[in-house]
Amino acid sequence: MLRVAIAGASGYTGFELIRILCCHPKVRLTMITSRQQAGQKLADFYPAFRNHLDLRFEEADPDELARNADLVFTALPHQAAMNLVPSLLDRQLKVVDLSADYRFRSPEVYARWYEPHRTPELLAEAVYGLPELYRDAIRSARLVGNPGCYPTSVILAAGPLLRHRLVDPASLVADSKSGASGAGRGVSLGLHFCEVNEGFRAYKVAEHRHTPEIEQELSLLAGEPLRISFTPHLLPMSRGILTTVYAGLRQGVVASQVDGAFRDFYREAPFVRLCGSDFPSTLQVRGSNYCDIAWKVDERVGRVIVVSVIDNLTRGASGQAVCNMNLMAGFPEGMGIDAPPWQP
Amino acid sequence: MLRVAIAGASGYTGFELIRILCCHPKVRLTMITSRQQAGQKLADFYPAFRNHLDLRFEEADPDELARNADLVFTALPHQAAMNLVPSLLDRQLKVVDLSADYRFRSPEVYARWYEPHRTPELLAEAVYGLPELYRDAIRSARLVGNPGCYPTSVILAAGPLLRHRLVDPASLVADSKSGASGAGRGVSLGLHFCEVNEGFRAYKVAEHRHTPEIEQELSLLAGEPLRISFTPHLLPMSRGILTTVYAGLRQGVVASQVDGAFRDFYREAPFVRLCGSDFPSTLQVRGSNYCDIAWKVDERVGRVIVVSVIDNLTRGASGQAVCNMNLMAGFPEGMGIDAPPWQP
Amino acid sequence: MLRVAIAGASGYTGFELIRILCCHPKVRLTMITSRQQAGQKLADFYPAFRNHLDLRFEEADPDELARNADLVFTALPHQAAMNLVPSLLDRQLKVVDLSADYRFRSPEVYARWYEPHRTPELLAEAVYGLPELYRDAIRSARLVGNPGCYPTSVILAAGPLLRHRLVDPASLVADSKSGASGAGRGVSLGLHFCEVNEGFRAYKVAEHRHTPEIEQELSLLAGEPLRISFTPHLLPMSRGILTTVYAGLRQGVVASQVDGAFRDFYREAPFVRLCGSDFPSTLQVRGSNYCDIAWKVDERVGRVIVVSVIDNLTRGASGQAVCNMNLMAGFPEGMGIDAPPWQP
Amino acid sequence: MLRVAIAGASGYTGFELIRILCCHPKVRLTMITSRQQAGQKLADFYPAFRNHLDLRFEEADPDELARNADLVFTALPHQAAMNLVPSLLDRQLKVVDLSADYRFRSPEVYARWYEPHRTPELLAEAVYGLPELYRDAIRSARLVGNPGCYPTSVILAAGPLLRHRLVDPASLVADSKSGASGAGRGVSLGLHFCEVNEGFRAYKVAEHRHTPEIEQELSLLAGEPLRISFTPHLLPMSRGILTTVYAGLRQGVVASQVDGAFRDFYREAPFVRLCGSDFPSTLQVRGSNYCDIAWKVDERVGRVIVVSVIDNLTRGASGQAVCNMNLMAGFPEGMGIDAPPWQP
Repeated sequence: MLRVAIAGASGYTGFELIRILCCHPKVRLTMITSRQQAGQKLADFYPAFRNHLDLRFEEADPDELARNADLVFTALPHQAAMNLVPSLLDRQLKVVDLSADYRFRSPEVYARWYEPHRTPELLAEAVYGLPELYRDAIRSARLVGNPGCYPTSVILAAGPLLRHRLVDPASLVADSKSGASGAGRGVSLGLHFCEVNEGFRAYKVAEHRHTPEIEQELSLLAGEPLRISFTPHLLPMSRGILTTVYAGLRQGVVASQVDGAFRDFYREAPFVRLCGSDFPSTLQVRGSNYCDIAWKVDERVGRVIVVSVIDNLTRGASGQAVCNMNLMAGFPEGMGIDAPPWQP
Repeated sequence: MLRVAIAGASGYTGFELIRILCCHPKVRLTMITSRQQAGQKLADFYPAFRNHLDLRFEEADPDELARNADLVFTALPHQAAMNLVPSLLDRQLKVVDLSADYRFRSPEVYARWYEPHRTPELLAEAVYGLPELYRDAIRSARLVGNPGCYPTSVILAAGPLLRHRLVDPASLVADSKSGASGAGRGVSLGLHFCEVNEGFRAYKVAEHRHTPEIEQELSLLAGEPLRISFTPHLLPMSRGILTTVYAGLRQGVVASQVDGAFRDFYREAPFVRLCGSDFPSTLQVRGSNYCDIAWKVDERVGRVIVVSVIDNLTRGASGQAVCNMNLMAGFPEGMGIDAPPWQP
Repeated sequence: MLRVAIAGASGYTGFELIRILCCHPKVRLTMITSRQQAGQKLADFYPAFRNHLDLRFEEADPDELARNADLVFTALPHQAAMNLVPSLLDRQLKVVDLSADYRFRSPEVYARWYEPHRTPELLAEAVYGLPELYRDAIRSARLVGNPGCYPTSVILAAGPLLRHRLVDPASLVADSKSGASGAGRGVSLGLHFCEVNEGFRAYKVAEHRHTPEIEQELSLLAGEPLRISFTPHLLPMSRGILTTVYAGLRQGVVASQVDGAFRDFYREAPFVRLCGSDFPSTLQVRGSNYCDIAWKVDERVGRVIVVSVIDNLTRGASGQAVCNMNLMAGFPEGMGIDAPPWQP
Repeated sequence: MLRVAIAGASGYTGFELIRILCCHPKVRLTMITSRQQAGQKLADFYPAFRNHLDLRFEEADPDELARNADLVFTALPHQAAMNLVPSLLDRQLKVVDLSADYRFRSPEVYARWYEPHRTPELLAEAVYGLPELYRDAIRSARLVGNPGCYPTSVILAAGPLLRHRLVDPASLVADSKSGASGAGRGVSLGLHFCEVNEGFRAYKVAEHRHTPEIEQELSLLAGEPLRISFTPHLLPMSRGILTTVYAGLRQGVVASQVDGAFRDFYREAPFVRLCGSDFPSTLQVRGSNYCDIAWKVDERVGRVIVVSVIDNLTRGASGQAVCNMNLMAGFPEGMGIDAPPWQP
């Protein structure tokens, strides 16, 4: 059994990690931390977990974590993660970090969109935890930067088009829509039920911090630096991200090439389901690690439109993190995350 | 491996049965039927199930069912169930029936609230599938009448009070609220998104067919015939039932007796979680087989108020049906239905 | 034109007052106050009001209010209201208070459920602002205590039964369900979108402060002191309250007497619509000042079930407050609040 | 008083027309028709209208309509509208048609996306009812083709950029999201509450019939034929459309020019509110005739992103139709549609 701990377990991604891990056949969840909830019983904080786990939140002490765990999920705010992660690695722990701190290859890019990085030397080692792109590297990593929820949905939608050189990299637009759990469990007026319900809005237009993460990975796939228009929107629902990607086709590209690119790219991807032109609802992946993708070539305008759907807490965060853990531990990729989606 | 079929698998309870069964470690789901969808692939009808099951809907032929299964879940409308069930029993199949057809002990009561019963002789044999009441009888049953969603929530809330003679049986009021999936997947104006969303209403006031089912079981618990005011309401959400029960306390009854009754009644009930006076949200049981119960003695008015929450599709239908199957097959009671709830 | 001010205008009831008043043909809204937002433009705080009103939030200075207004709506927390109201009355202003501070006849009752009252002498003068009960007294009042949202829904549902002596006063149960705007605009984890959405729960069971307000008015209607079981629940929607009342019929009472009681009680009530046994949805009154009421006598159990629906922000707060203002100012009762409901 | 009738009044746009018209100070609503509901009282079909209008649905007989009305709103399905409208014009009635039948200048375009047009000669006469573009022509029209909901949101967002030649017409992408009322009141599985709630999906990708309507008007504004990528999505809420437009800036265009284009274009537009870069929620226009627009120049990628929000039933259909009626009748443009939005 792999002994696992979660640092920063009181938010929605923490909940989702606990939910998944307490059914994982090869994992024992031994420790959960939360600065604010330290001392409280998990089952009192989240009554959903009564009868399941008899744990209390603790402080995130590195020695304690090392005593109790072989691998740690750090589900902390950015900056807080980079304060803890090095001390975990020093103690021979493996780490899957769900913050933004270890997703970037370039400290300069991180500094431009976030703050200066305190452990830039680790960026070279950290592996970007998107299994469809880096499965082998993840297997041997000790530090994985788990992708952001929006980047997961955008990269999986646009990746095949870029790798196969079917579209103009300068033409990319990603219009993304996320359920409210993506904003986390912290309270604010903007997340008050009556402010979200029955409303819909864009936010952080042209300035969301997931933009450089998307650009880093898509540039690597394209083989050249590219920039993208990325616009996030807030949906009046709890879970799910849908991203609509628009890309201008290169001269002469036809629909069958696009179909082929998706089939080729996802030949061995158990968690990507290709839907042809049956455009999916977020409902059909809810609670699962799937990314369902559909597309259509619109010859009238010379573009291809791609739609991807994921559950932002599962594939967009905790499910993908467990998938990375599986790879790092030598377990089957889908272990513990292969139940069907929740519907309705 | 137990070979299992679902007759009438295209609705929400069918979906939920499939979802649960395709992860059950001791079950092989071999056949699903639907008159309307016969011939169609499950994964085309419900894209959520792609990559999970390679089944097509078939016609509900008893010989075919007997060839493929040891146990059948009949998730058909009432009347349709009683047309199929006898032929399944004749072929040595075990049956868990999710309709109302085998929940009643008295053909007269069934006839008064539904229609005349065509197989009244089976009512004496059928076991009411509420494990907290009939665990042992279910173990040896060949036909289980799976309880209605509302009755499950009401009986579990009020049962301890009646068995322990703490309340006046004539005083019972059950005010129930259900998510829209309880009304099924059939289309109608009343279930149009815009007619349900942002609205709330009572329906079938003083005439809902779950009333006699509730009264049958509560009367048995009380040891005397009783009648109840039961009012269902439609919530603008997909899943969940919350029932608020009001009962007048018998002279001299004090709060500690009420606490004791609940603890005693649910001493060995892995799927009932007692919450004291921390009143639960339906969210904390969503997607699970739990029934969470809280209560408060209000001395000012001489009543006890009990609140129970369940997921109407899981504990209120398919999860409970699988629990009954587990008991009938000699599996552990919670096998395949012991994952934590879904939140948020 | 009546000059009107709103003290405490930044919450949802404030928004609703502004919305109504800026279309009222006989009112000029001259001043809005908010301690927290003082100095900010209304249209910046609530972009919905751009192009409508060019006001800024100010401090609630009594002299300033007296200079600008003839009547003030105080939409402040309880306790804060009683700190301001006397100084407004001293300056010859009329006041409609939306807090709980002037709803009670007995300072002892207020003290038991809230805190000690600082201006008990005003309680004798204040009129309870439910026009169906106190229309004439409101006309000549200088201080009206605007009813709570839940009490409005409960009193209008149960009042006719009690005044006509058709039910046993000791048997009353009111099971109420409210949209989330009833909890106000203050932020808290319990009102986070993901905690309310797709969930339903009871709260403050047997201890909600609206209980004594309901009991005060129903006791007066019954002609004897009575106590009620009142249970509030939180609905996953923004607006609307539905209350289900259960009452035991006195011996020999028949359905036609119940029908007659409702017709008689609401003979001249432009904002109550009797629906017989067509049970209403909250949707059909949304955004309006209506209370729609339906009922059914259930002879099986000897009870009558009454359902009332209101919009908690309109009839349950600001619409009713404007109705009271209309009566106090000699305007037609429905002026400015007679538009049809919003649907869907 | 203008005497007005609504042909096809039983759907959501019919409801919204009635809601608005029964408060309009210069209108008397004299007749409503519905083939399916003929004979039924409005207040029985829509209890929300009790106490407001004592009308019954009738058959849509042209002579009867001419006897009762000066102007008719035709809220019928396309094709049905063009069967009725000519006979209304023949009887000297003015018509605002809410279907697609009189929105197109070219019968060929209509034929390509819909069916062959039966009254192509009327297309030359009909005025496209977007007041910001055709205010003067609407004033003297006898037949107005009321714009589609999506086209209203897209044209108002992109129009200023094209008229001022600031963007490349070939680069336009419009990603639109609509509440479920936009799909009408007809029942279907796709609009079942549980299929819409907590889900989000794109539909009719690259083939929605509003595409040519958008292209017609934007081409006229651009002064050259253009094509657009238009993708509609279904939001889990009842009302509201948000459109996100992406457009590539022409070489050398700077942000201040974009600002200026919006200010200039909407100099005299009482129902467009410019929000700069404060991106609006659909909530802030709900129930109103406003279109709120925000934009941002993203120099990194050389694009401008524009977001518009409308209420699909008000500005996207019935409110705009009443605005057109006001113009045709010589009333002030905003009469009867100038109340503030509904929130929350």
